[in-house]
Amino acid sequence: MDDPNFRKPSTDHTGPVTAGHMQSSLAHSNYSRTGLTTLKISPAFYFDVEIEGAPSDLRDAVAQSQYYLENDKLGRLVVGRGANDTTAFATAMTLSKLTLSLASRAAVEPISSEAVKPLGTRSEEYALNIPADGSAATLTANSTLGLYRGLTTFNQLFYYYGGPFRGLGLDTSRHYYPVSDIQRTLDAMSWVKINTFHWHITDSQSFPLEVAQYPELAINGAYSPQEVYTASDVQYIVKYAAARGIDVMMEIDTPGHTAIMAAAYPEYVACFEASPWAFFSGEPPAGQLRFALPEVTNFTASLLTNIAKTLPSHYFSTGGDEINKNCYADDYPTQQQLKRTGMTLNGALDTFTQTTHGALIVQGKTPVVWEEMALDWNITLSNETIVMVWISSADAAAVVEKGFRIIQAPSDYFYLDSGAGEWLGDNPTGSSGPFRTWSEAYTFDPLANLTEAQYELVLGGEQILWSEQSGPQNVDPIVWPRAASSAEIFWSGKQPTGAALNVTEALPRLHDVRYRMVQRGINAIPLQPQWCAFRPDACDMYAWFGT
Amino acid sequence: MDDPNFRKPSTDHTGPVTAGHMQSSLAHSNYSRTGLTTLKISPAFYFDVEIEGAPSDLRDAVAQSQYYLENDKLGRLVVGRGANDTTAFATAMTLSKLTLSLASRAAVEPISSEAVKPLGTRSEEYALNIPADGSAATLTANSTLGLYRGLTTFNQLFYYYGGPFRGLGLDTSRHYYPVSDIQRTLDAMSWVKINTFHWHITDSQSFPLEVAQYPELAINGAYSPQEVYTASDVQYIVKYAAARGIDVMMEIDTPGHTAIMAAAYPEYVACFEASPWAFFSGEPPAGQLRFALPEVTNFTASLLTNIAKTLPSHYFSTGGDEINKNCYADDYPTQQQLKRTGMTLNGALDTFTQTTHGALIVQGKTPVVWEEMALDWNITLSNETIVMVWISSADAAAVVEKGFRIIQAPSDYFYLDSGAGEWLGDNPTGSSGPFRTWSEAYTFDPLANLTEAQYELVLGGEQILWSEQSGPQNVDPIVWPRAASSAEIFWSGKQPTGAALNVTEALPRLHDVRYRMVQRGINAIPLQPQWCAFRPDACDMYAWFGT
Repeated sequence: MDDPNFRKPSTDHTGPVTAGHMQSSLAHSNYSRTGLTTLKISPAFYFDVEIEGAPSDLRDAVAQSQYYLENDKLGRLVVGRGANDTTAFATAMTLSKLTLSLASRAAVEPISSEAVKPLGTRSEEYALNIPADGSAATLTANSTLGLYRGLTTFNQLFYYYGGPFRGLGLDTSRHYYPVSDIQRTLDAMSWVKINTFHWHITDSQSFPLEVAQYPELAINGAYSPQEVYTASDVQYIVKYAAARGIDVMMEIDTPGHTAIMAAAYPEYVACFEASPWAFFSGEPPAGQLRFALPEVTNFTASLLTNIAKTLPSHYFSTGGDEINKNCYADDYPTQQQLKRTGMTLNGALDTFTQTTHGALIVQGKTPVVWEEMALDWNITLSNETIVMVWISSADAAAVVEKGFRIIQAPSDYFYLDSGAGEWLGDNPTGSSGPFRTWSEAYTFDPLANLTEAQYELVLGGEQILWSEQSGPQNVDPIVWPRAASSAEIFWSGKQPTGAALNVTEALPRLHDVRYRMVQRGINAIPLQPQWCAFRPDACDMYAWFGT
Repeated sequence: MDDPNFRKPSTDHTGPVTAGHMQSSLAHSNYSRTGLTTLKISPAFYFDVEIEGAPSDLRDAVAQSQYYLENDKLGRLVVGRGANDTTAFATAMTLSKLTLSLASRAAVEPISSEAVKPLGTRSEEYALNIPADGSAATLTANSTLGLYRGLTTFNQLFYYYGGPFRGLGLDTSRHYYPVSDIQRTLDAMSWVKINTFHWHITDSQSFPLEVAQYPELAINGAYSPQEVYTASDVQYIVKYAAARGIDVMMEIDTPGHTAIMAAAYPEYVACFEASPWAFFSGEPPAGQLRFALPEVTNFTASLLTNIAKTLPSHYFSTGGDEINKNCYADDYPTQQQLKRTGMTLNGALDTFTQTTHGALIVQGKTPVVWEEMALDWNITLSNETIVMVWISSADAAAVVEKGFRIIQAPSDYFYLDSGAGEWLGDNPTGSSGPFRTWSEAYTFDPLANLTEAQYELVLGGEQILWSEQSGPQNVDPIVWPRAASSAEIFWSGKQPTGAALNVTEALPRLHDVRYRMVQRGINAIPLQPQWCAFRPDACDMYAWFGT
């Protein structure tokens, strides 16, 4: 099952349900009592089979039910896919088990034996009783066949109510963050119920991840031997996160954002440290994987597989943003390969992506990519691929138009690094985007410009800290409490378009969150003068004007 | 003497000087050897009078010389007032004392007796010997009158070479900073040779300063009893700063920025918490001293005096920014008083300012004010008043045009709080100025738009952190290493207009400063990805294009 804190599986349309199907000959005589009370199915839900010598096909049927429960992702067939059930969920009790038993004196026979008995002698009726408070749910019948029919009904009563993706992204390549800083960040994430740590662990500047099969990457690519996440560091962080309800979605950005891999595999990287860097790359140093080469594709697939299989998450990001074509225009190995195969650069990227994604899918991972992979290149992505929107909130519509599920990480609302100004060494008057305040982020409408039918494609969103100008020194104040904004947007469910959350209502609560964080050792920035924090609305601009 | 680290008094045009004036009758027979070696006069310089039974008028003359040395502020009469002597100063030795003695067997008589002896019998000649290395400087003569003449020459050899004001401003009212945070900030200031801590200690939101004579101000005006700087805290901070070469220039902002004084003295404050605040004040809460009332003027003069006299600095800021006239338009006590006296609001402010400044001047303090006092109001400020430019760098010219000395703290270059976005509670799309990067600050030209004759009026400058959205949690990353920019601008001397400092040259050094700060426990922000920090110029935008 997914991280239990990420999914919120639930029965819906259950409640005090007693369904007795009595079928004899062609006459149907049913008795049932149903209800509309919502119940949540516990992540630890199990079927308690209290039948001595239960036949193996009954056990199989139970296992199948468990599988359906964990893997069916059927949303409610209503507008918004159940997003309006938030209130019902808030008070819902939890169903922890269903006890299966046979009536006393019933014979314990395999389903397969019961199923072939002559009509009139089969016992298919069952009693499924699920009290509204979720306690003591039972399924009883006179035969294993009756239990099987009852299980089938049970398996039709639950709906997937996916907890939205509520993430925080952190880039640990431009600057390294010691494990303790990540732990502290995970603690704070858990306090605002963020459920995904999007770990952009490597980039062009450093490769701080120890990979058992490819040790040279970190040995040659990390800033220093101390600035490495060892395999055990990663496992520690994953477990630390999981214990706090947080799934770790790692990203190994490819084929761009990989320059430093040249330190270990120079033959795999084009235009490494080419000059002027701005022609070849979004930022220094230049350098991208030679994805047209089969050996690079195979290496990358193997690298991603080796990393992904150590991680429990269902999700793994392969990046795919900002691939610079100039890098390959004069790259001899790339051009030679394209000429030899008659492929275009686009075609080569398609092959590369399908190969690397295929390897991840084999590992049970859902590939996650940045928006350019869906919008800028003509390549085939698996329908399951999740696309992260970053360049602009305006791009979400184009991505969902292609049918992909998206994670909203738009730079114009959610980039935590924005506003720190130009960092290039000789451009003192250069500008960068403005600082995105908590309240600006809070006004983000995740469903803007989408049709109702597309709403279900919005999985959630995240704020993200790119670390060109950040490190352990400022991670707390630059992230907190701002990152609580998206956490609340996606916890509160998708808002109908146009109904932005109310910043005035949220501010006192966010002050509370922030002061509590400070008490717990997080250096979260103040949002207003302390005078204001103690006086809700006294520091509003418009409230007192009545506008 | 001023804080020895603030002033750098110096002899100039001294060096190995031996000047013997032998005057007899009308015949002048002089012997002198002069040099151009620059010497610095030690802050601890003293006259060592090795004369048994030295007469009191010689002692007075020596005291007078000491006074001149400490108080003459004559700059060199050259373009730039000696700003180009930086190189000479870098290698200059220090003169620590001048030993005065009489030739053996000379009679020890008062100057006043020697001075009235008949011509031909007076001994006015002396020998003043100041070696180029500053050691063993001597003044010898045959009479006290000769010594007096020699002292006079000595008193003409030194020039004031004021070390520029290199400050850091911190607002401790919008949020309180524990003493330990201020200590840590002072440590970092000392590492970049900042010489003034401009302590904006109180404002409208809280009054965290314990004043012995007015304890209610802190008791009722601090955020909490724990968020108070006690008298001993202040003394501790002042001494801690002084030991690190830092003068503490405190600011009690008046008559605006005083709302919270109403918590102790409601009758002294107009429009307290009036609504809508934006009509009455730059930010909430509204409230300003009723400066037209004599009792408020007297109270303020007494308050400032009581605070200032506990502080060793020669400088004390009375603020004076952002006085809002609407606050007084319907304020009954103010209007009644203006009517009774026939005064205008401007006239009342003039009286208030002259009274409060007069009280400070009596305490030996030089008043410092914000630019509005010089530009927006028609009031009489003492010529000694120092004016801080903040609204815009463009305002400096207008202030020096009025003959005032200025400290450059322009918000468009030096405001460290800029870029944090709108903090009002209901204005999520509101903007504030951009973040001022270290390099943008570094391009500030302190002499822009001034004439050469006005250059001497620029005392220096400071970067400043207003604390609406800052506190102990982010003081390190929001201040450091950015505040090093102004420190270097003013340490390096006033640059000729147009010759901005070179950011490309400075960046590697600033990286070094920043990484060293981090080693010492200051959470200074990274300026670039670490990859860049290790590779000077590799992350320049234009360098590789050759533009």
